Amino acid sequence: MQQDSSALDSTSLNFQLKPMTSEPGGSDSRRGRGTSGLRPEEYVPPGVSRMRAAVSLSLCLLVCLALGLACVLLACLWSSRFRGGFGWDGSGLEFNWHPVLMTSGLVVLYGYAAVLYRVPLTWGQSKLPWKLLHSGLMLLALLLSALGLCAVFDFHNENHIPNLYSLHSWVGLSAVLLFALQWVAGFAGFLLPCSPLSFRKRLKPLHVWLGGSILSLSIAACVSGINEKLLFVLKGDNQTSPYSRLPPEAVFANSLGVMIVAFGLVVLRILTNRNWQRPDPQPQDTAYTPLTQEENE
Amino acid sequence: MQQDSSALDSTSLNFQLKPMTSEPGGSDSRRGRGTSGLRPEEYVPPGVSRMRAAVSLSLCLLVCLALGLACVLLACLWSSRFRGGFGWDGSGLEFNWHPVLMTSGLVVLYGYAAVLYRVPLTWGQSKLPWKLLHSGLMLLALLLSALGLCAVFDFHNENHIPNLYSLHSWVGLSAVLLFALQWVAGFAGFLLPCSPLSFRKRLKPLHVWLGGSILSLSIAACVSGINEKLLFVLKGDNQTSPYSRLPPEAVFANSLGVMIVAFGLVVLRILTNRNWQRPDPQPQDTAYTPLTQEENE
Repeated sequence: MQQDSSALDSTSLNFQLKPMTSEPGGSDSRRGRGTSGLRPEEYVPPGVSRMRAAVSLSLCLLVCLALGLACVLLACLWSSRFRGGFGWDGSGLEFNWHPVLMTSGLVVLYGYAAVLYRVPLTWGQSKLPWKLLHSGLMLLALLLSALGLCAVFDFHNENHIPNLYSLHSWVGLSAVLLFALQWVAGFAGFLLPCSPLSFRKRLKPLHVWLGGSILSLSIAACVSGINEKLLFVLKGDNQTSPYSRLPPEAVFANSLGVMIVAFGLVVLRILTNRNWQRPDPQPQDTAYTPLTQEENE
Repeated sequence: MQQDSSALDSTSLNFQLKPMTSEPGGSDSRRGRGTSGLRPEEYVPPGVSRMRAAVSLSLCLLVCLALGLACVLLACLWSSRFRGGFGWDGSGLEFNWHPVLMTSGLVVLYGYAAVLYRVPLTWGQSKLPWKLLHSGLMLLALLLSALGLCAVFDFHNENHIPNLYSLHSWVGLSAVLLFALQWVAGFAGFLLPCSPLSFRKRLKPLHVWLGGSILSLSIAACVSGINEKLLFVLKGDNQTSPYSRLPPEAVFANSLGVMIVAFGLVVLRILTNRNWQRPDPQPQDTAYTPLTQEENE
């Protein structure tokens, strides 16, 4: 990703953020504005705007962290408090791992790994250890997701329920398969020293796009999955209120869905803000060429 | 959005695209590479890479157009062939407008309006007419979505079915409300001449992020909505096969969901590729200041 060179000015914040507004000046006097188009009273000193950007990024990262933990907690509570807890015996208790593992792996850990490079703490250092951590967290997220799929396939097979008929399952499985493809391509392109730089340059924008797309698919899979499960279990028989009356379990699981959506949007906000991208490689990083070379293109 | 100035080189293609690869040269001779990090055999002339980028963009826009039309067609066919057609009488025939209008408005027209600025045809001209078209198409998309909501609320009220209990409805309504908020803020920020430039500069990245987020929410709402409807209507009674046996209607509507997901991913691909962004404003565009000033920041 291209970075504006103005992002590389050293600041007193010990990390680099592009100013949100430009400096006044220039010859365009229409409406009393400088070349930046700002009126003098709209001018914000670069130090102040950098500070604002740093505060916004830190707040977003904290919100992301908190929402992710809340998602995992709510998924665990839904399975344990409302659905009877956990097991690995082909019963509904085994199914209960499915929402917990998919939420933890395909959404939360995936999101954390995706925003890792946006943590300013990582910027002053060489990229290789963070790339390894990014890759490792993604692999763990993929393994948790695969385990989450095993739970639901086991449950279906044990109870003679057909697999892969619902749109939820089609979308969810597509998300996991694309995730696996993305991981293999990312490993081959960005971690194998023998990968050609031209391949890496072509892969990078695809990696970024597919990364966001997989998260969108995961959210769609989670929303449809929670909706489907509540329609299955809250039928109004067996002393439960129907879903349409919004009993406590429905409100609780719907809230989990809302949290997952909010987490996804915050992750996408962090990823799409160019002012928060890792700055261009420092000279010492070139020692890791070709592992880090052109990383920010 | 910052644009690399290299994107503004005039080309024989009559529109401007950034080269996918850099030119060789410079003093870095490690591994026989230039400053761009490319080996001589990896070097692609800028004209060829621009041609490749132009072909990719045109293909993506054509695929986007075709997938969007296919989504609307499939939604219409699902309602007409499998669900009995259309009406506005509070019956299931009125409900049948819901998937058609939400798919057409909240997904397809929204997506078309979002990628409008990426159509190279629009680049050589002043931005104002295209901004008005973008805004107009988005308003039409919003109205279709609102009408789609009316259809389902009418149907529910007429049949004494509670509103807004499912996660699908929560996510779908959130998408429409955020869409309305986005439209109002976009109109106020980018079309009203009195809007301060500092507000516009702050709004632009939020507008871009929220634009993609609304599309993601719409896809989640569509996937969960199709899934929910199939669970409601394909119960295995009344001479229909259950959803779990994947009767023709299930395959058909699942395919509609897959098409919607594919359309959304292609739109996101077009939006996230910086090489395909509208180049910086041309000098003559400044006549529209402040309507177009700093648009590409």
